[in-house]
Amino acid sequence: MSDLLERLLPALAWTRGYHRSLLASDMLAAMIVTIMLIPQSLAYALLAGLPAEMGLYASILPLIAYALFGTSRALSVGPVAVASLMTATAVGKVAASGTLDYATAAVAMALISGLMLFVMGLLRFGFLANFLSHPVVSGFITASGIIIGLSQLRHILGIHGHGDTITELLASLSRNLADTNALATLTGVAAIAFLFWTRRGLAPLLRRCGLADTPAGMLAKAGPVVAILATTLASYYGDFGQRGVDLVGAVPRGLPVLGIPSFDLQLWSDLALPALLISIIGFVESVSVGKTLAAKRRQRIDPNQELIALGAANMASGVSGGFPVTGGFSRSVVNFDAGAETPAASFFAAIGIALAALLLTPVLYYLPKATLAATIIVAVSTLVDFAVIRRAWRYSISDFVAVATTIVATLLLGVELGVLAGIVASIGLHLYKTTRPHIAVVGAIAGTEHFRNVERHNVITHPNIVSLRVDESLYFANASYLEDYIYRLVAEIDGLQHVILQCPAVNEIDLSALEALEAINHRLQEQGLTLNLSEVKGPVMDTLQKSDFLQHLSGKVYLTHHQAVQALKLDEIEPYII
Amino acid sequence: MSDLLERLLPALAWTRGYHRSLLASDMLAAMIVTIMLIPQSLAYALLAGLPAEMGLYASILPLIAYALFGTSRALSVGPVAVASLMTATAVGKVAASGTLDYATAAVAMALISGLMLFVMGLLRFGFLANFLSHPVVSGFITASGIIIGLSQLRHILGIHGHGDTITELLASLSRNLADTNALATLTGVAAIAFLFWTRRGLAPLLRRCGLADTPAGMLAKAGPVVAILATTLASYYGDFGQRGVDLVGAVPRGLPVLGIPSFDLQLWSDLALPALLISIIGFVESVSVGKTLAAKRRQRIDPNQELIALGAANMASGVSGGFPVTGGFSRSVVNFDAGAETPAASFFAAIGIALAALLLTPVLYYLPKATLAATIIVAVSTLVDFAVIRRAWRYSISDFVAVATTIVATLLLGVELGVLAGIVASIGLHLYKTTRPHIAVVGAIAGTEHFRNVERHNVITHPNIVSLRVDESLYFANASYLEDYIYRLVAEIDGLQHVILQCPAVNEIDLSALEALEAINHRLQEQGLTLNLSEVKGPVMDTLQKSDFLQHLSGKVYLTHHQAVQALKLDEIEPYII
Repeated sequence: MSDLLERLLPALAWTRGYHRSLLASDMLAAMIVTIMLIPQSLAYALLAGLPAEMGLYASILPLIAYALFGTSRALSVGPVAVASLMTATAVGKVAASGTLDYATAAVAMALISGLMLFVMGLLRFGFLANFLSHPVVSGFITASGIIIGLSQLRHILGIHGHGDTITELLASLSRNLADTNALATLTGVAAIAFLFWTRRGLAPLLRRCGLADTPAGMLAKAGPVVAILATTLASYYGDFGQRGVDLVGAVPRGLPVLGIPSFDLQLWSDLALPALLISIIGFVESVSVGKTLAAKRRQRIDPNQELIALGAANMASGVSGGFPVTGGFSRSVVNFDAGAETPAASFFAAIGIALAALLLTPVLYYLPKATLAATIIVAVSTLVDFAVIRRAWRYSISDFVAVATTIVATLLLGVELGVLAGIVASIGLHLYKTTRPHIAVVGAIAGTEHFRNVERHNVITHPNIVSLRVDESLYFANASYLEDYIYRLVAEIDGLQHVILQCPAVNEIDLSALEALEAINHRLQEQGLTLNLSEVKGPVMDTLQKSDFLQHLSGKVYLTHHQAVQALKLDEIEPYII
Repeated sequence: MSDLLERLLPALAWTRGYHRSLLASDMLAAMIVTIMLIPQSLAYALLAGLPAEMGLYASILPLIAYALFGTSRALSVGPVAVASLMTATAVGKVAASGTLDYATAAVAMALISGLMLFVMGLLRFGFLANFLSHPVVSGFITASGIIIGLSQLRHILGIHGHGDTITELLASLSRNLADTNALATLTGVAAIAFLFWTRRGLAPLLRRCGLADTPAGMLAKAGPVVAILATTLASYYGDFGQRGVDLVGAVPRGLPVLGIPSFDLQLWSDLALPALLISIIGFVESVSVGKTLAAKRRQRIDPNQELIALGAANMASGVSGGFPVTGGFSRSVVNFDAGAETPAASFFAAIGIALAALLLTPVLYYLPKATLAATIIVAVSTLVDFAVIRRAWRYSISDFVAVATTIVATLLLGVELGVLAGIVASIGLHLYKTTRPHIAVVGAIAGTEHFRNVERHNVITHPNIVSLRVDESLYFANASYLEDYIYRLVAEIDGLQHVILQCPAVNEIDLSALEALEAINHRLQEQGLTLNLSEVKGPVMDTLQKSDFLQHLSGKVYLTHHQAVQALKLDEIEPYII
């Protein structure tokens, strides 16, 4: 019982041994993460088309929920770029941006997504994440990064420019290009330049000034806070608001009010598919971050418990006025590098953000949106990585097609259809390959009991035997291909007596394939040939024994292919050497 | 050249060897099918909301087109229930029922659908049919047979009773049960009894009377003709129409006028998606019927050519005032059971319908619908076969789940969702199995170079080596499972130095799996272990050589597992015998 409880609530395990030195590490990490999270939360709320305070709300309770249920020690949960973009796309379809309905729909989205993740966790559906291949995820994130960057360009230029796809965004931006606000553009470009410099140039500079590696790296991460402070001051004294620069404006002070969003069947059913997609993408992103960090400290994470934890975090977001959250890469790495030892670091960071929501919001009034857009653009610039395309191109055509489909579909059709197209393409290509399996005619390598492809090796074959190695599981999608292949091959060979299927690569024979084998056996028998099997694996043999196929088999099943050939070859005839 | 021509026009092959006894069988089948087709065509035209004569038009040229291009010997093409219903739904959206536009749209639909199927055939998309597994097809046919039989019950009882699913049909029938017409029921039950008797008892009786086997069988197959003639005469002299028995009634006379439907871009683009759906469902239905019938006579059908043939049939329907057609379920069974040997039967049936449309329609006036219903019920009764469920249950759980899903979904949700559910379930189950592949720890069988599962055989292992045989292709869906498995296993063994993956069953390593292998290689190296591969197949090795994985591999790739173990074992330590 206590084992089960500990599995469902991993916090029970790490809180038991909690001590002072862990507390010190966790609090330091929490301080650094809090400073980083404030601008990020505001920026991603902007990206999702939501009021700034919702970004803060999404960074309080969700962090605590994940700290209680999560299995990763260093994962930091909150609003992230891709999920925010997906929220904007989905919610934009059911509500007009900026209205109360829009925010209500985003909150409902967090709750629906949370419930879905939680139920998937209870049903142990974590394996579903496996169907998002690495190339598809990389391609999707790259394309999303491009769309996110383009979508923020309007804040840099101070113009309107909306759209879910690259073509819509470019068309909308170019239509409004004449309205460009020079001061907003100056602010945005300056912030981008400064932020890139803090990433590339600041840490080495600080180290040259005598600072140790770790504090130098940490200080460099505070770049966004400095940019926000500087542009807020400039905006306040320079009267940016009067000069047509978009400011964040009034942000309500205080903590989120708890409450369950009203249930609206139409809204919920409209949001169901997008919520499922956000859940799966968020889960995959979060688990890959969690796995990477866990591996560095030889810890392990449990994907099914992660579903439950992310479900709890999103439900917490949904009942406290937030929007969909997941484990973020950059913030988790900062948390990890800052020395977070346990999820208590996230707990303390949540307190930090809550304090910010109580005390700092009046300062945010004068913050130009261009600064937040600059933060987003610099953050997503690391997401855009075309190396995967080159790699897939060199490695295999089907991986390349999967990644290219994902990128093109995401850019041209938007995030939802993009990720669906990627999943469908990668599964479809995998299945298509299995419908036309590689089948090799094999012969013995002289002096050994090993058999290899006659087209690749110098091997010995016997004129009365044809040995086939089928390099695929036999199932409904390739059963008729095997039938056709054998009938065609057998028709070409004179003097044949025996067909031997070498089955080391046959991992499954389903009922359709069994029926095909029965048909092959029957037809070969009519032609005076025997059908034999060799090297059938244990689990496959177990299944075959549940049918009467082995009783009707015209030939035999041999443990090794060598034994089969020894038993069936005609000694008086010289073997061929190919 | 003549090979290509014969492939594109399969009629060239079967017409060459055509002889007298085939002609007799085909003409008899054509007669029976013709008599059955006329009322069926009228009924499906009414179901599609179209003028009655359009049903006849859809049953003349399409049959001839399929006879020329099709590869199934017994498939009978024409209007069918599902395609007629889908036509009504799709066309109803673009035109008000009963107007000229409505009929024009239905004709256009046939032409669009025909063009789509034809192009899919030229692109060789027929492999899509492989994803219909035998259990799914059997389950679908069984469930469809039940629905067809139930749908005909209303004609036997002389009441109303409509619906696409078993629940709708039963509810509708039971609501109207009080209206049962005794004379219609008597006619129907007598016809059913007579038809079952001609199938089971007539041929033996005729043989006992001294008739040879073949004419006895032929005469027994003429049962439906006798039933139709007898009940038509009884209906005429007994005044069934006045006594409330539903008769086929007045059928307009005349042949279709040929012409290409006018092209209307708006209409065509509105109909594109529904036409694609009808094409796919129709192809799936037609190929599953064709496959089943071909298997009974050990013939084969070519899915790509079937696409071309169905495309030609629908285009023929579109230029002769018909509506979408496909390989019909009950009519193909009647055709098959009546002894059709070649597509000439369809050709003769087309002539028969043309003649009937010109000459015989007044006679059909008195034919009770109950007799036709009886013919259909007796025909589909042979298709309802639950043996596949028992067989799948004994053989494997996943085949059982696929067939059960298909049957339940078809009965409760209708044929379209039923067949889709079956396909999704069987592909999903196949993919799920590959996400958790069988991985065996293997050891050498004493005195041989063969390696087998340590849990199934008495084998020799070495304490510093763990040999793993992965029984599945490595791809994105199982890459992380392999990683987790190896890390867990390696953590359990002390004194380990080498991990060898025996890869005879690995038919593919995609980019995601390659990245997993790189991660495994890296992590084992950190722990002081080497990763080695053995028995990697040619095509897989070709792919691996396109990456730099082999250069970074901490161990080596060995031709045989035996060589790997010989190279890596520590001789001074005694091997374990398990």
